[in-house]
Amino acid sequence: MTNGGSDPTMNVLPTEECYRLLATHEIGRIGVVADHYPLILPVNYRLDGTTVVIRTHAGTILHAAEHANVTFEVDEVDRAARSGWSVLIRGQAEEVTEAHRAELVASTEESGVQPWAPGDKGHWLRLITHEISGRRIVPGELPALDPRAYL
Amino acid sequence: MTNGGSDPTMNVLPTEECYRLLATHEIGRIGVVADHYPLILPVNYRLDGTTVVIRTHAGTILHAAEHANVTFEVDEVDRAARSGWSVLIRGQAEEVTEAHRAELVASTEESGVQPWAPGDKGHWLRLITHEISGRRIVPGELPALDPRAYL
Repeated sequence: MTNGGSDPTMNVLPTEECYRLLATHEIGRIGVVADHYPLILPVNYRLDGTTVVIRTHAGTILHAAEHANVTFEVDEVDRAARSGWSVLIRGQAEEVTEAHRAELVASTEESGVQPWAPGDKGHWLRLITHEISGRRIVPGELPALDPRAYL
Repeated sequence: MTNGGSDPTMNVLPTEECYRLLATHEIGRIGVVADHYPLILPVNYRLDGTTVVIRTHAGTILHAAEHANVTFEVDEVDRAARSGWSVLIRGQAEEVTEAHRAELVASTEESGVQPWAPGDKGHWLRLITHEISGRRIVPGELPALDPRAYL
């Protein structure tokens, strides 16, 4: 629905490209409804296969994300070139348990990346993806530096 | 609530600093609840005094934002330095009318910035701010490159 192909300013990305782009970043934003607002909060993440794993502190996110629909967004915009992309996951979040954690550490070791673990202050969430979508942002949509968009 | 000062990984920014930071960027993200998810969508914006003016295309955002609580987020993270900031506005969005538009063009001319106008494809929204908050992201909160966060 959001990615209606009839909109000429929007290029829909295939799923594989969405995951490829997610793997190139480590800071995203989680969307959670809390206090009647769709809050947007930057979070650290990593991709474990096709699973987004988010590090956050206890508080708003953990409380609001429990048993609720959340989103996760990553984007990259080149202001000079007026181009970029964004990827949005719709899903649910669950806190990583001790059992999950051991499994995640193991899969991370296998990938050759130094494994991680949360410190005392940290909590880890896994996203259960319902849907992933992405798009390329084309100049017509972000015209701040385009004189044709000005009076 | 979100900005509880008791959290040692979070430095709350004063309101004036939030607006100063917003003025340094032109790409943000609007949060709207649609289809039971808190959708996050990158948008072009500019600051008109302390009012955020957002350019978007017709569709999900306009439809979902009408008469509903929305949020607007801008952030900047230096991955190498593990530092950054984020600003979040809670508010409502209203579409810029013809009357508003003339006023905005006038205020933009006065500011010395080249005035803008939406093309046929564009719609402009003004945010009515209920609350603005910001924080500095400190290394403990985004530890992806911090070896102390790893096993």
